[in-house]
Amino acid sequence: MGLDRDFAAALAEVVGPDHVRQSPGDLAVYARDATPLFHHPPDAVVFPATTDQVSRVLQLATAYRVPVVPRGSGSNLCAATVPLRGGIILALTRMTQILEVSSEELLARVQPGVTTARLADAAAARNLLYAPDPGSRTTATVGGNIATCAGGLRGLKYGVTRNYVLGLEAVLPTGEVVRTGGRLWKDVAGYDLTRLLTGSEGTLAVITEATVALLPAPAESNTGVAYFESLADASRAVGAIISSGIVPATLEFLDRKCVAVVEEYAGLGLRLDAGALLLFGEDGPLEVVAGNMVRMRKICAESGALEVTVAADVARAEALLTARRCSLPALSRLGSLTILEDVTVPRPRMPEMVGRIDEIAERFDLQIATFGHAGDGNLHPTCVLDPDDEAAVERAHKAFAEVFRTAIRLDGTITGEHGVGAAKLPFLAERLGSAQLGLLRRIKSAFDPAGVLNPGKLGS
Amino acid sequence: MGLDRDFAAALAEVVGPDHVRQSPGDLAVYARDATPLFHHPPDAVVFPATTDQVSRVLQLATAYRVPVVPRGSGSNLCAATVPLRGGIILALTRMTQILEVSSEELLARVQPGVTTARLADAAAARNLLYAPDPGSRTTATVGGNIATCAGGLRGLKYGVTRNYVLGLEAVLPTGEVVRTGGRLWKDVAGYDLTRLLTGSEGTLAVITEATVALLPAPAESNTGVAYFESLADASRAVGAIISSGIVPATLEFLDRKCVAVVEEYAGLGLRLDAGALLLFGEDGPLEVVAGNMVRMRKICAESGALEVTVAADVARAEALLTARRCSLPALSRLGSLTILEDVTVPRPRMPEMVGRIDEIAERFDLQIATFGHAGDGNLHPTCVLDPDDEAAVERAHKAFAEVFRTAIRLDGTITGEHGVGAAKLPFLAERLGSAQLGLLRRIKSAFDPAGVLNPGKLGS
Repeated sequence: MGLDRDFAAALAEVVGPDHVRQSPGDLAVYARDATPLFHHPPDAVVFPATTDQVSRVLQLATAYRVPVVPRGSGSNLCAATVPLRGGIILALTRMTQILEVSSEELLARVQPGVTTARLADAAAARNLLYAPDPGSRTTATVGGNIATCAGGLRGLKYGVTRNYVLGLEAVLPTGEVVRTGGRLWKDVAGYDLTRLLTGSEGTLAVITEATVALLPAPAESNTGVAYFESLADASRAVGAIISSGIVPATLEFLDRKCVAVVEEYAGLGLRLDAGALLLFGEDGPLEVVAGNMVRMRKICAESGALEVTVAADVARAEALLTARRCSLPALSRLGSLTILEDVTVPRPRMPEMVGRIDEIAERFDLQIATFGHAGDGNLHPTCVLDPDDEAAVERAHKAFAEVFRTAIRLDGTITGEHGVGAAKLPFLAERLGSAQLGLLRRIKSAFDPAGVLNPGKLGS
Repeated sequence: MGLDRDFAAALAEVVGPDHVRQSPGDLAVYARDATPLFHHPPDAVVFPATTDQVSRVLQLATAYRVPVVPRGSGSNLCAATVPLRGGIILALTRMTQILEVSSEELLARVQPGVTTARLADAAAARNLLYAPDPGSRTTATVGGNIATCAGGLRGLKYGVTRNYVLGLEAVLPTGEVVRTGGRLWKDVAGYDLTRLLTGSEGTLAVITEATVALLPAPAESNTGVAYFESLADASRAVGAIISSGIVPATLEFLDRKCVAVVEEYAGLGLRLDAGALLLFGEDGPLEVVAGNMVRMRKICAESGALEVTVAADVARAEALLTARRCSLPALSRLGSLTILEDVTVPRPRMPEMVGRIDEIAERFDLQIATFGHAGDGNLHPTCVLDPDDEAAVERAHKAFAEVFRTAIRLDGTITGEHGVGAAKLPFLAERLGSAQLGLLRRIKSAFDPAGVLNPGKLGS
């Protein structure tokens, strides 16, 4: 393959020769993102520094009909940034300026390559909160978070990335620059392109700047842990908490298998004889946090918890959240291939869904442990296996296909927060139906008639 | 004009002859919505009772190439439901079932013809809150609110309609039924059609069912009033409140002219010598409300308020909010034509914007009073005049064109919460630019290639 020489020369003229990389090493690195089992090398990796450079690169790519895959840190888990058809990776990792943080307007304006954690830190320095907190926050970029509409641990109380994007600057495949939304909480002038681009996975336009909403930082926070005999019991407690009028900042669960693995990994002193561990947390004014923690502790106890503890101090609260945050690395140690999935079901269907996952795992002879966001029904069944065991990999594919279908049958979805990418595309028709899939394709054409942006992904 | 007879007969077969109306009286009523100066009669008004009937009506309309204008209560203020090109009004006012309200899942499922107030009441009966509260809530329907992405008095703290729509059932012009989103807080399977349909003003699909998010009802609320010498002073207080870490439930202002008119209308005991009145309110747990009211009162005083009062009881708090809610009826008494506009600017630009509105009103010799949502920069400059004074009506059009341009120049928008409809369409290109306008048109074609849905509006 390789790039057309004129095209490569033109790219080098736009971004500078140092910022067009075609070495075998670079191509190998950018052949993959964080998704296992998917890889295909690009023909080049291009690093623009400005919106104008992005625009000129896209004009060239459209003229030469070369696929362009926009990419931040590549931490996505759905193969959204694997360049399946070659072409160029458009890496936005040089566009890393935080352009503005405003306490009075409660917003920040950033370039796409800023990591989510850096944005959150810049907000925190002014006593503000950037609420979306995906697990990958220290690595992932804001541009990537917007492209995948990333979620996180605070979805029920705070919502997901889409709830915080006020405005976008984005470049169309023609090179035209559009500015959607702006610095406004209320703006209904035109179709909601801001939200349409959020979650569009680099298939419609390239995001070059984002204006995001911030909140005043909560004064206090705390976390507690409750152990239950079964996930059904834990789920009943979650239902009772929410029905009681509390929308907690944190409601996370680990199943028995996860607890065992996390405890072995991190030695947090977790109890190993329970069927499910539930983390519950609240943030806000001191009196609200204190009151809600007491109420949640009581509800857990009344719902049959084997044991409930509220963290006595910040260090212990952090340790408890660590249990949840280290589920993935802890599980990853069990096998050299970790498939982390991301189905969501309505909250009351969660125990049924996890039960079905366990049954599927057993039937396909696989190790699948499940953790996730009990507040919003977002489950991460995680399968660890040996990638050289081809039969097992094949079984895992079949098992997850059943998991996705089960989620759909329970009024759920095939991806709550990770995205569709190449990994979930084969299941999208089952979730959306053919009429809706047709709309997606026509919307894709409305933005990208030549199909140069991230081909073979969403909208294909 | 009039309908093709075969088409009319087929419609009657679908919805029943009683539900296809073609009397001169009916056509006259449905020639207008709440927007002054815009009117055009439909050829018929059709009242479907089910999604299936909506689907069959749309199939027929597409086959016969007859325009279809979906409509709830017609309370919109942007001529979104005036059938500019005739055809049929598809009135969804027979689809009025509240299908479900769930405390555990914090959601409701409703048909489009349910009024916003009825949904809010059904939620309140279970101690839940449906947060969007547009001024027209007792008349407007949920379907219409979603179609225009209605806002309201609580935008800064609670967001607008789009933040509460979880899922939609909608019918495409082909008659195909799509179900976007669902009962889930996290779902990224596909482009965000739920948000794309929200605010699409009946130009892309007909909404036949909505699943909306609810919140636990706040335990307490309170309101206070502060008078300032100028709107600039009031605006400084608003900035200081928000910078202090409070995001209040209510931050509404009335300019001097509004205060005078409201006082004459409602006799609330408002002070008439101030340049601006600011209502500030909070809701939530008792201790939070009490604490924030004290802090806001103090900040207003420190920002130079002439007088600050916090309501001593619920009745007085309600009376204060009445001052804001009756601004429009009070102003409407001054002339038989009331043009209520809806620009938004970033919060710090509000005093400048209001100053420019006053200057424009004076220059064009018009009475324009301004009230609005100080928390989110959403202003409602309101012009009252005699509709028979053609010269004045002409001057009002010119004046508002300048108002829109000024808002755009101040990083604002031509409509914060009312919509584009036919009224704002001429100004949309200035707000969005030609590349974005082109996208809107191509998105419209992706949904409605024959152009039967609400032609001459958004996407045209």
